[in-house]
Amino acid sequence: MGQTVVDFVQKHPQLELVAGLERGDDPQSQLQGLQADIWVDFTVPESRMEGIEFALRHNIAAVVGTTGYTAEDLQCIQGWVQEFQCGCIIAPNFQVGNVLMQHFAAKAAAYFDYAEIIEYHHENKVDYPSGTAMKTAELMQQSKRRFNAGTHDQVANLEGARGGDFGGIRVHALRMPGYIASQEVIFGAPGQRLSIRHDSIDRDSYMPGVEMAARYIANRAELVYGLEKILGLDKE
Amino acid sequence: MGQTVVDFVQKHPQLELVAGLERGDDPQSQLQGLQADIWVDFTVPESRMEGIEFALRHNIAAVVGTTGYTAEDLQCIQGWVQEFQCGCIIAPNFQVGNVLMQHFAAKAAAYFDYAEIIEYHHENKVDYPSGTAMKTAELMQQSKRRFNAGTHDQVANLEGARGGDFGGIRVHALRMPGYIASQEVIFGAPGQRLSIRHDSIDRDSYMPGVEMAARYIANRAELVYGLEKILGLDKE
Amino acid sequence: MGQTVVDFVQKHPQLELVAGLERGDDPQSQLQGLQADIWVDFTVPESRMEGIEFALRHNIAAVVGTTGYTAEDLQCIQGWVQEFQCGCIIAPNFQVGNVLMQHFAAKAAAYFDYAEIIEYHHENKVDYPSGTAMKTAELMQQSKRRFNAGTHDQVANLEGARGGDFGGIRVHALRMPGYIASQEVIFGAPGQRLSIRHDSIDRDSYMPGVEMAARYIANRAELVYGLEKILGLDKE
Amino acid sequence: MGQTVVDFVQKHPQLELVAGLERGDDPQSQLQGLQADIWVDFTVPESRMEGIEFALRHNIAAVVGTTGYTAEDLQCIQGWVQEFQCGCIIAPNFQVGNVLMQHFAAKAAAYFDYAEIIEYHHENKVDYPSGTAMKTAELMQQSKRRFNAGTHDQVANLEGARGGDFGGIRVHALRMPGYIASQEVIFGAPGQRLSIRHDSIDRDSYMPGVEMAARYIANRAELVYGLEKILGLDKE
Repeated sequence: MGQTVVDFVQKHPQLELVAGLERGDDPQSQLQGLQADIWVDFTVPESRMEGIEFALRHNIAAVVGTTGYTAEDLQCIQGWVQEFQCGCIIAPNFQVGNVLMQHFAAKAAAYFDYAEIIEYHHENKVDYPSGTAMKTAELMQQSKRRFNAGTHDQVANLEGARGGDFGGIRVHALRMPGYIASQEVIFGAPGQRLSIRHDSIDRDSYMPGVEMAARYIANRAELVYGLEKILGLDKE
Repeated sequence: MGQTVVDFVQKHPQLELVAGLERGDDPQSQLQGLQADIWVDFTVPESRMEGIEFALRHNIAAVVGTTGYTAEDLQCIQGWVQEFQCGCIIAPNFQVGNVLMQHFAAKAAAYFDYAEIIEYHHENKVDYPSGTAMKTAELMQQSKRRFNAGTHDQVANLEGARGGDFGGIRVHALRMPGYIASQEVIFGAPGQRLSIRHDSIDRDSYMPGVEMAARYIANRAELVYGLEKILGLDKE
Repeated sequence: MGQTVVDFVQKHPQLELVAGLERGDDPQSQLQGLQADIWVDFTVPESRMEGIEFALRHNIAAVVGTTGYTAEDLQCIQGWVQEFQCGCIIAPNFQVGNVLMQHFAAKAAAYFDYAEIIEYHHENKVDYPSGTAMKTAELMQQSKRRFNAGTHDQVANLEGARGGDFGGIRVHALRMPGYIASQEVIFGAPGQRLSIRHDSIDRDSYMPGVEMAARYIANRAELVYGLEKILGLDKE
Repeated sequence: MGQTVVDFVQKHPQLELVAGLERGDDPQSQLQGLQADIWVDFTVPESRMEGIEFALRHNIAAVVGTTGYTAEDLQCIQGWVQEFQCGCIIAPNFQVGNVLMQHFAAKAAAYFDYAEIIEYHHENKVDYPSGTAMKTAELMQQSKRRFNAGTHDQVANLEGARGGDFGGIRVHALRMPGYIASQEVIFGAPGQRLSIRHDSIDRDSYMPGVEMAARYIANRAELVYGLEKILGLDKE
């Protein structure tokens, strides 16, 4: 992701690249004498805190795409935000379409008795189903529905074919080259179905969300978790 | 649709069929001595007013799936609603999934620079694109975006292949047996796309929306236009 | 299916309905004095033999959509075909599109290292995955490929999400209203994927295949198993 | 494409890169003293002949992905193939999935009365519909069917929405980021539909076809046009 961010900033007419840090680099010495407005941080979970602290302490608003933050982590970051009066936005996914898919799926869940999720990823992904699929199913459960109670799965011709069971929602994961990351959420009712699908084919897809986040957080001393918080999805 | 409504009511444990009127029947004589709570009206545009007037005048709340109402029609019905203190809900489409698709497409339109609509119907449909496609494109335009401005359509190998142009949104209509009514709205951004699709394969798909409308309007002296108004889509 | 066949024959300008038999009817007495060319038989597996014997013995070519025939059954029917010099065609599926999907999937299997099947059926189907999915996977195996050997499924966030495993081919089954019977076979390779999908939304879909079979078998004293045999798929 | 080929060859355990030529380079001097088995040529239409002549004259079998060859061009190349006893394979598309999609669509066209094509490309593509869509429609026409004769397109709510008309087959082109190149061919019949779809998301997708072509042509003094010729699609 680092290279993708660098390419995006360099091509963008209104953005300027101040510095690019790799893992192991010391920000103190690398940023000596430089002035930055935004700190974009895509690192590994183990290093998820140190960059943020450095950025906020130096009054650089942080846009963070790393995963693995605990409740304690967030409380700690919230402390820095207030101490240094500088903003931080953390999002597990900066793809606007992905966030919208999850939001719409959560909304639609209130109107259908049947729902299943199919997610498609490249063959090198090690976990299944994806974190996005798990998160989507969790959001759909907030509708308090008892999904798929009317099915009649009595005879297994092949064990496992009905997929994973997340509180009634069936989740199916496919793995093969030809996909990067796709997900479809399908809702069924008598005579009709509704489907919401997101396809990602390139890391470019993260950049508009990163830019949106940077513009939002630049002048706000807040901690924001989740891109959906700044999309204004629920205002009319 | 009449038969579908009759079948649905007869199978429903909490509903009872009081009477079924065909075109040409006189409601006054057919309903003599009967007591009804809900008037379900799927008729032709020419007869769109008379049933509603009869129903409201006799204190029967009206659920109406007919199309073609003008602003004057609605004003007139509003008058009856207040005069007789009896509710009426009119919806061009009672399929919950269809209404959600339009709602989500309108929402998503605020976040993407590219959008096209593909609608699929059976081969006997005479108009193209469908009313739903036109309505969806209209709702999407409320985002004030200039859609698809970045395309480069310079060489036509076959005229018309880029579809109809509705304020920049391209609309494509397919017609063949094997479909009843489907629609997909596709949004594009660098490296990703989002698609929202509704498939209807049977008239049964209208009935949950009709029931929802009946329950809503039964005790409310209001005129409601559009199923989306009663779905509670924007409350959090 | 019986009613669907009756409706189709009655509407068809070149076909005439001689008689319709329900289960329990005695064909001998029902067909007394009547002359038929084609016997169309969609019955339960238990009665799979008796109708065919009656038809062939009376020189009526048989078109049979019943399932459950064993190798011994077929040998027995072959005997009748030769004894009475009258043809019989049996097909587990008379939908031309379904047969083509299976045929194309079997062909494509020779060119891809990755393949998965998703099948979608209504919520009342009791077995999973469908017989069509099992048959398709079996045909694909004839390519002798080791499918999906390059995946890295190491971390299960939800057991079962990777679907059923049919000799390496992953098979996923969805169940909900809004589908009758659909199936998609997806093949993956670096940077591309190929998908073959069949959607059935109505029993009408069986009739063109039944008619095709009837025309084929009318004057041939053969036993044919499978609609694919008469489609001429492999001639150039 | 040049860089993609170079990367592929360099990573391949059984292949070795002898040289890489850019436009303007002189092959004579660049290849001085080098020994090559295969010449891979993806150039612009204007330079479509010179590389092939050089390669064949130097006994290097040619694998060519350039487009724009005329019947005269092919006759000329056929002459070189025989004169120098060295093979050449030219293919407008080296993606196996794309070639299979076209092949299956051509086959399926014999069994359906209704067919439409939807193709999806990135927003920078200048022509519409794509060459692949035009070629597919042409192949489907060989079935001699009168496609889509039963539609009832009488009322245009928006001109052009029914797409381009290629001998009855309707062709629809979508353009937006989030796609590289995709195409779906949909066939309809009463109660069912069949769809064949190819999605390409990366130039990697060309390489397996290029390798397949190289292996085929290495020791054959033939001119082959089209990857489908060497896939063995019609042998049983």
